[in-house]
Amino acid sequence: MRDFLPADKARRERVLAVIRERYRAHGFDEIETPVMEEYARLHSGIGGDNEKLAYNVLKRGLDGAAITAAADSPADLTDLGLRYDLTVPLARFYASHRGELPSVFRSVQIAPVWRAERPQKGRYRQFMQCDIDIMGDASSRAEAELIVASLDTLDALGLEGASVRINDRRVLDWMLGHFGFSEAERPGVLITIDKLDKIRAEGVVAELRERGASEAAVDAFESFMRRPVTLEYSPFGERQVRKLLPDAVPDEIVAHLVGIGAAVSAARTTSTIVPGDIPLVFDPFLVRGMGYYTGTIFELAHPSVDYSLGGGGRYDGMIGRFLGGDVPAVGFSIGFERIVDLVKDAEDEASRSIVLVHDRDVAVAELLAIKASLVAEGLRVRLEVRTKNLKALLERASADGYSSFAIVSAGATSASLEIKPLT
Amino acid sequence: MRDFLPADKARRERVLAVIRERYRAHGFDEIETPVMEEYARLHSGIGGDNEKLAYNVLKRGLDGAAITAAADSPADLTDLGLRYDLTVPLARFYASHRGELPSVFRSVQIAPVWRAERPQKGRYRQFMQCDIDIMGDASSRAEAELIVASLDTLDALGLEGASVRINDRRVLDWMLGHFGFSEAERPGVLITIDKLDKIRAEGVVAELRERGASEAAVDAFESFMRRPVTLEYSPFGERQVRKLLPDAVPDEIVAHLVGIGAAVSAARTTSTIVPGDIPLVFDPFLVRGMGYYTGTIFELAHPSVDYSLGGGGRYDGMIGRFLGGDVPAVGFSIGFERIVDLVKDAEDEASRSIVLVHDRDVAVAELLAIKASLVAEGLRVRLEVRTKNLKALLERASADGYSSFAIVSAGATSASLEIKPLT
Repeated sequence: MRDFLPADKARRERVLAVIRERYRAHGFDEIETPVMEEYARLHSGIGGDNEKLAYNVLKRGLDGAAITAAADSPADLTDLGLRYDLTVPLARFYASHRGELPSVFRSVQIAPVWRAERPQKGRYRQFMQCDIDIMGDASSRAEAELIVASLDTLDALGLEGASVRINDRRVLDWMLGHFGFSEAERPGVLITIDKLDKIRAEGVVAELRERGASEAAVDAFESFMRRPVTLEYSPFGERQVRKLLPDAVPDEIVAHLVGIGAAVSAARTTSTIVPGDIPLVFDPFLVRGMGYYTGTIFELAHPSVDYSLGGGGRYDGMIGRFLGGDVPAVGFSIGFERIVDLVKDAEDEASRSIVLVHDRDVAVAELLAIKASLVAEGLRVRLEVRTKNLKALLERASADGYSSFAIVSAGATSASLEIKPLT
Repeated sequence: MRDFLPADKARRERVLAVIRERYRAHGFDEIETPVMEEYARLHSGIGGDNEKLAYNVLKRGLDGAAITAAADSPADLTDLGLRYDLTVPLARFYASHRGELPSVFRSVQIAPVWRAERPQKGRYRQFMQCDIDIMGDASSRAEAELIVASLDTLDALGLEGASVRINDRRVLDWMLGHFGFSEAERPGVLITIDKLDKIRAEGVVAELRERGASEAAVDAFESFMRRPVTLEYSPFGERQVRKLLPDAVPDEIVAHLVGIGAAVSAARTTSTIVPGDIPLVFDPFLVRGMGYYTGTIFELAHPSVDYSLGGGGRYDGMIGRFLGGDVPAVGFSIGFERIVDLVKDAEDEASRSIVLVHDRDVAVAELLAIKASLVAEGLRVRLEVRTKNLKALLERASADGYSSFAIVSAGATSASLEIKPLT
């Protein structure tokens, strides 16, 4: 868990403000839930592996007898826990407040989550998540809105050129069946296929054989992976989708993907810096770990980095669990902690700030009057008592993002200040 | 603990953005600390009564033997807790990072805290605190900067006309000694005097007698309270401060208070709506509960409500505890949850938003192209599928803050839309 010093905190808040503003413009409504949820809800199975990483909160008022009695069932010591994601709270929120929300509800949540992971570089026990979800819309419009809003947000953060790798769980399922993998062996096969980027097709085939997967199915997979695919540039669309799949792929799965592509393409022509370019890449072997996806899945990529900046997908079954009825849902989780590291510091911001370096004998009232008049003019103003090492003081202020300074002596007024740039 | 639905969440974020922006302009730097702190630090005595209200986090990996062993000392079950205020984390933060911070450090923290209180109206177990602190400045400049920045922030939120009740712990201490209360009985006497607003001077005198406080001292207090005080308008300044105190009050205490008043007055003439009016009220019997205050104490008042909107004071001793040296410190905690209820909804915001009500047969690509072009023009845009009850749909959108709508039929473009106001 980290402390954020002023420069980092300011950058984080600036990024958050842009994310809030852009998603709001795209019709998403921000909501907030408490950081603690009931223990039972956090451990209902939806959270997958993350459930084991939850921080649990000690029940209040436990006496010796209750503690001793809990020796065999530590869960009796706790009734609340810190959320490890924003999806479990969203499902509870939606079930509680559905009647107060529009029939298609587009939510944004930007909030911290906690996971008791082993500390390692780039992993934190408290980190921000930024989730965008659409509930109540089963059409490809929902995916397209999520993708367009997210790409627009990255543009606004100065991260133009992002793209989305897209697939559909139904593509994977159909394809594995087409190759001849039985339903029972498909989950294991998916775990291996998920490593395709790292171990390539040869590695996947070898691992599938090692696992003892149906031999005929592995052969079919291998021969499919070896088929010639023309590498000419092919924009996202029906032709590209079909080219990357076995011929017999059902039309309705292709149609959903192609519908998303057409909508993203139509929307991005007015806002992208490369009009006409569709920032979608079809990847028929994109898997994504989470067990609860039921349809489209996607991952956000940016040319400046080789890791994903976020991802999501359709999880039509899950919200219904709490409501006793199906609710179509699709979500996108933007990797806030990764994005914030890529965003450049704003340069123009510094231009409206000043450090007033004052002698000790300047009356407090004079000093605050000068400060107030500069604040009223729109400047960010810091007071500093003049020290012997003026140079060090000015360097410190410059590092803190201040762009100018003035020396304030007794009798000064805001009109008499000589404002100089900090270099 | 509460869920925040879109309208409330939007108002909260709008208020937070104003608070952030104003304090930043006044030279305050925002920081953030993790929500969990070490158990020992949360229970070191600084937190006062709030320590008992802390939520404690269950240690991970406890086995049956460890649980049984903890039956007599439940604290062994926990190593972390959720913060119950922002002062304990600030003290730890400052001790950890002092070398990376300016010598006078002006911090803002805007973050949730948790207290396991009995649920009651207006009290929540998770609520936002907004603390502004200045470390490293023992002069009245620090108090003046806190007060001016806070009043400016309230102005920016549309809550003009706020004022600050101010006192000094040293005034109270000197006065109680002057009346003849012994050092040992003063803490108890302060608890009774803190009720002055509710039970008036007569009630305080009666309770002091009941408590068995020194009779001569109670008599002296009673006769002081009965002295004639002219009620003519008297602006904050030396004359007013001296008039409300016994004549023998030491000059240095008066000077600190008067210095704050002069500085606030000088700063507010350029920004207040009533130039020349000093928004300070000296109250020699203002106590404030927290045991750690050592000097100035203050409370924020607004004419629209009869409760305080925040408060704070000097706590020069506390930060030093962690550093082994004195660090002057003064803080102001703004009652975010109270303020957010007083702030009016922004009206102009709605003027740039539109609901696109579309027929089911409009192609997703057409629809998203129209949405994108309106978003690019600066509008907030929501899509809605047209339903039989169009009126209900439009009322819902209006309640959600949208100001206009257009019907989108197949073949429409953004140029062909007929935009109508939502009433």
